[in-house]
Amino acid sequence: MASATTPLLADDRRNSAADSDRLADSEDNALRDRALSNRTGPSWVPRLREVLLFAWALLATAGVLIMAVWMSHKSQTGYSKPSGKRNLIFMVSDGMGPASLSMTRSFRQYTEGLDHGDTLTLDKHFWGSSRTRSASSFITDSAAGATAFSCAQKSYNGAISMLPDHTPCGTVLEAAKRAGYMTGLVVTTDITDATPACFSSHVDVRTQNDEIALQQVGDGALERVVDLMLGGGRCHFLPNTTHGSCRADDVDVVSMAKEKYGWTYTDNRAGFDELWEGKLEVPLPMLGLFASTDVPFELDRRNMNDIYPSLSEMATTALRALEKATQDSDQGFFLMIEGSRIDHAGHYNDPAAQVHEVLEYDKTFQAVLDFLDESKTEGVLVATSDHETGGLSVAKQLRSDYPQQYLWYPGVLANASSSTEYLAFKLYEHIASTAKNGTSKKGLKVYINDELVKAGLGVHDATDTELAEIVSTPAKAQDLFAKIISQRAEIGWSSHGHSAVDVNIYSSGGSGTDAIRGNVENTEVGDFLREYIGVDVEAVTKELRKKYQRRSKTSALKLDATGESSSSEDHWAAHEDLVMRQADGTH
Amino acid sequence: MASATTPLLADDRRNSAADSDRLADSEDNALRDRALSNRTGPSWVPRLREVLLFAWALLATAGVLIMAVWMSHKSQTGYSKPSGKRNLIFMVSDGMGPASLSMTRSFRQYTEGLDHGDTLTLDKHFWGSSRTRSASSFITDSAAGATAFSCAQKSYNGAISMLPDHTPCGTVLEAAKRAGYMTGLVVTTDITDATPACFSSHVDVRTQNDEIALQQVGDGALERVVDLMLGGGRCHFLPNTTHGSCRADDVDVVSMAKEKYGWTYTDNRAGFDELWEGKLEVPLPMLGLFASTDVPFELDRRNMNDIYPSLSEMATTALRALEKATQDSDQGFFLMIEGSRIDHAGHYNDPAAQVHEVLEYDKTFQAVLDFLDESKTEGVLVATSDHETGGLSVAKQLRSDYPQQYLWYPGVLANASSSTEYLAFKLYEHIASTAKNGTSKKGLKVYINDELVKAGLGVHDATDTELAEIVSTPAKAQDLFAKIISQRAEIGWSSHGHSAVDVNIYSSGGSGTDAIRGNVENTEVGDFLREYIGVDVEAVTKELRKKYQRRSKTSALKLDATGESSSSEDHWAAHEDLVMRQADGTH
Repeated sequence: MASATTPLLADDRRNSAADSDRLADSEDNALRDRALSNRTGPSWVPRLREVLLFAWALLATAGVLIMAVWMSHKSQTGYSKPSGKRNLIFMVSDGMGPASLSMTRSFRQYTEGLDHGDTLTLDKHFWGSSRTRSASSFITDSAAGATAFSCAQKSYNGAISMLPDHTPCGTVLEAAKRAGYMTGLVVTTDITDATPACFSSHVDVRTQNDEIALQQVGDGALERVVDLMLGGGRCHFLPNTTHGSCRADDVDVVSMAKEKYGWTYTDNRAGFDELWEGKLEVPLPMLGLFASTDVPFELDRRNMNDIYPSLSEMATTALRALEKATQDSDQGFFLMIEGSRIDHAGHYNDPAAQVHEVLEYDKTFQAVLDFLDESKTEGVLVATSDHETGGLSVAKQLRSDYPQQYLWYPGVLANASSSTEYLAFKLYEHIASTAKNGTSKKGLKVYINDELVKAGLGVHDATDTELAEIVSTPAKAQDLFAKIISQRAEIGWSSHGHSAVDVNIYSSGGSGTDAIRGNVENTEVGDFLREYIGVDVEAVTKELRKKYQRRSKTSALKLDATGESSSSEDHWAAHEDLVMRQADGTH
Repeated sequence: MASATTPLLADDRRNSAADSDRLADSEDNALRDRALSNRTGPSWVPRLREVLLFAWALLATAGVLIMAVWMSHKSQTGYSKPSGKRNLIFMVSDGMGPASLSMTRSFRQYTEGLDHGDTLTLDKHFWGSSRTRSASSFITDSAAGATAFSCAQKSYNGAISMLPDHTPCGTVLEAAKRAGYMTGLVVTTDITDATPACFSSHVDVRTQNDEIALQQVGDGALERVVDLMLGGGRCHFLPNTTHGSCRADDVDVVSMAKEKYGWTYTDNRAGFDELWEGKLEVPLPMLGLFASTDVPFELDRRNMNDIYPSLSEMATTALRALEKATQDSDQGFFLMIEGSRIDHAGHYNDPAAQVHEVLEYDKTFQAVLDFLDESKTEGVLVATSDHETGGLSVAKQLRSDYPQQYLWYPGVLANASSSTEYLAFKLYEHIASTAKNGTSKKGLKVYINDELVKAGLGVHDATDTELAEIVSTPAKAQDLFAKIISQRAEIGWSSHGHSAVDVNIYSSGGSGTDAIRGNVENTEVGDFLREYIGVDVEAVTKELRKKYQRRSKTSALKLDATGESSSSEDHWAAHEDLVMRQADGTH
């Protein structure tokens, strides 16, 4: 029975067993035989042992290799290059600088009695900061700011996805559409405003809203590239023969959209509610324009909820619609959501309006995070601002002597129930309605104090000087209301325009977002967008240039939508004029 | 020869071989035998194979386990818990908010003709942002701000490492010293000012500079905890019987430091140069006080380089000294470096002074990075601000009508060769020197315009109104100079005090700094400091409380350093009075 593999000890035992009492009973012998058999084993045992050892070694080695590859991958890029289906949501908080966050966070902590660690959703997803200067100035406007996102290139203030040499640049939304993605834009201002326009059109200057509207519905060089647009700015889509139009021409863009490009159109809350409440599936392409120009500030909209949907409602509807529309597709969607009017509250220096705009934006950010959590498709949320507006500072020195204390008063903002924009509108309405009977200055002052300053601004100690100034210069009423509330809250503003401060970047994280961590140029945010969905924006740029050259030669420039004939030279002259004009009064 | 381990195939071959031509030559047979022998092997071959397989499997398994543990560690904390020798450098940019960075970056890009991507060293190490509210206000002062770093706890404005219940809290510097680290403080203001004081002393209110100086040299509850102090504030260390003292008492703190606590002391650039240029080894403990109060703004100091060392020079000297002193130690060092006067430029609303303060701070940050790169000891650099000062905005609307353009003028700041502080000082000197001969208002106006506004501020278009205001209210000259330059550069300020905006965090990265990435509370920065060097701050707090209770009982409170006897009640009354006073005029 001895074999080459029999242990020496077993041999010894065997020998000693052989020397032992030969009269041992058969049970003992049987036991001993079994023990020996266990030691040396049947002929297949050692072979099995080798096979098992080999399998163990192979598995462990494979484990080491897999982990090594994975770790090297992680340390190199933090993620693997895009491959599968994915959704990209890009949020823009127009005009929101770092101070807006401190102000809104403290406002919320104060009004809700929260601890200092109880922060905004945005705070929890702080990712980095973005430098914002444009190609033409240290202080950008929204057009150059959005071109940095859409085209990933610096351009001049006023440019709507046009480069400094006045050639169009392809946008990430256009390239996404070409690659089979569904695309959407959600805003609270005009859908033709600079930020949404930069993703979906190309014009020399942002004031060309008439042309932007045409391109957005599909009447541009690339035809239709957007599948869903929700927001305001209806007046740019109605012919100037219609009440509520702000077009220079009589083109009925809504009819064109419906008939030529297949859009479903709604212009009211009832139409939206069927989508929002899920009663109707959202028929794409879908154009929802719920306001003639801007959707009211959230502070006012809360009281007009039956007329206007909120940003978070529009965003949630868009997410649901685009997810459904791409459920059987190999590609996901690209959606841009803008908290457009944080910027307007900055321009108006209205701190109460701003905190509610930021809170609604924060709520929308959370809604997108919830969507991503629940979605089966991989997705990323990146959010940033194009610039800061207002030179906002969460501190204001009221007298020329050194500030007595370091503080500000969130409670003052909590007392406001209307924006300064709404109060000025009410004032003009009142003046107009009482004009025929003649308005006494004294009566007007009482009205302003009781109905607007006390009831709307929540300020009960307006001075006679403050009220008299509004009575004597009602055209400046909005600024004066803003001054009254800002001073009492001790909130400072340095301008009604933009400032150069870096703006924050927020993200759901993961999936290559390390590329925009830290302090980056705004064009790097644009780089990330196209890289995340892996689309060929250059191809779109080439296509656009070819088409624009052809147009330029035939003088059929889209700038001439008014019907005037003009040469290419006239076009650039008109452009220069527009560039000069746009600097004055646009955001 | 068949054994239990002989492969079945070999048995078959063997049988078939036995059936083959038995007359095959001996060579054939020999070959065949060798082949068979290879197949079945000598008796030790299968055993070796098993041993090798086992070793392979074991090694690979160990590899998997080690990698798994390492990866789980990495994903949990980003680093392994402190173990070896390490150095911690903590930089504080007092009063530097986000807008200071945009302003300084654009200033540098403009003056040096750089591309938008050519950023500050700080920008390249942007890490996150810090919320700054204190326990007593939404807007912190530097004392509560630094207590959040030193004690990792929120306290009231004015608190120097004291908690809201008026008990002292141990600081990271004290705990580092107890754990065997060397410690240092480098500043450009008084070394007794709030930020350095919070690391090295405990008093109820920041204005107790006399007491802070005593504790800093070793005359406090914990005796000496600092090894190196470089900066300004000499006046707090000289007895009030001496010229240049600002103490209320006649205690000679310099003599006490030298004689009782073994400090080497220098008060001039010559003494510093021997250390800076490496002619002398830095003898620790070392106290270098190079200015009576503040070291001049970098903008002015450049022209007084023979009198005052710069922040980067002091920091480099401190790094070299502390590294040398710890070269044979198991523990490294903790060094706090403060760009103290970014805050002062904010308080004075002086944008030209501020950009040069930030540039010098940026240079110092780079010097620390260089040190860490070259050092053999593991180390980390973390930098942040305590708060923002001035409500700075990189935009200023000059007229009440909507801003015509979005821009600001860095070139205006580049033309300034003196700070407004220095120009006001020169004005007072001039008025004093001409007082006996009587100064004509016209002559004074010419002097102000030619020698101060044109030559110093670099402004050549001051209006008669602006100049007349300085002549009529010379006490406000500094503010008026600041207004002249800020308006022309289109830089806005909302206060001469602090604001609530979040401040930036910068880091060399690695080693657990992920804990302070994103948006964090200022106390979390404090948490990181103690955790990185792994010191027991709680033990120091207990020790301090025991000693302070004992003192309190014997009424021998350190507040009574003036020699006045007072009961514990008197002490708290004095404290309340000081709390009221400190709000007025301190930083």
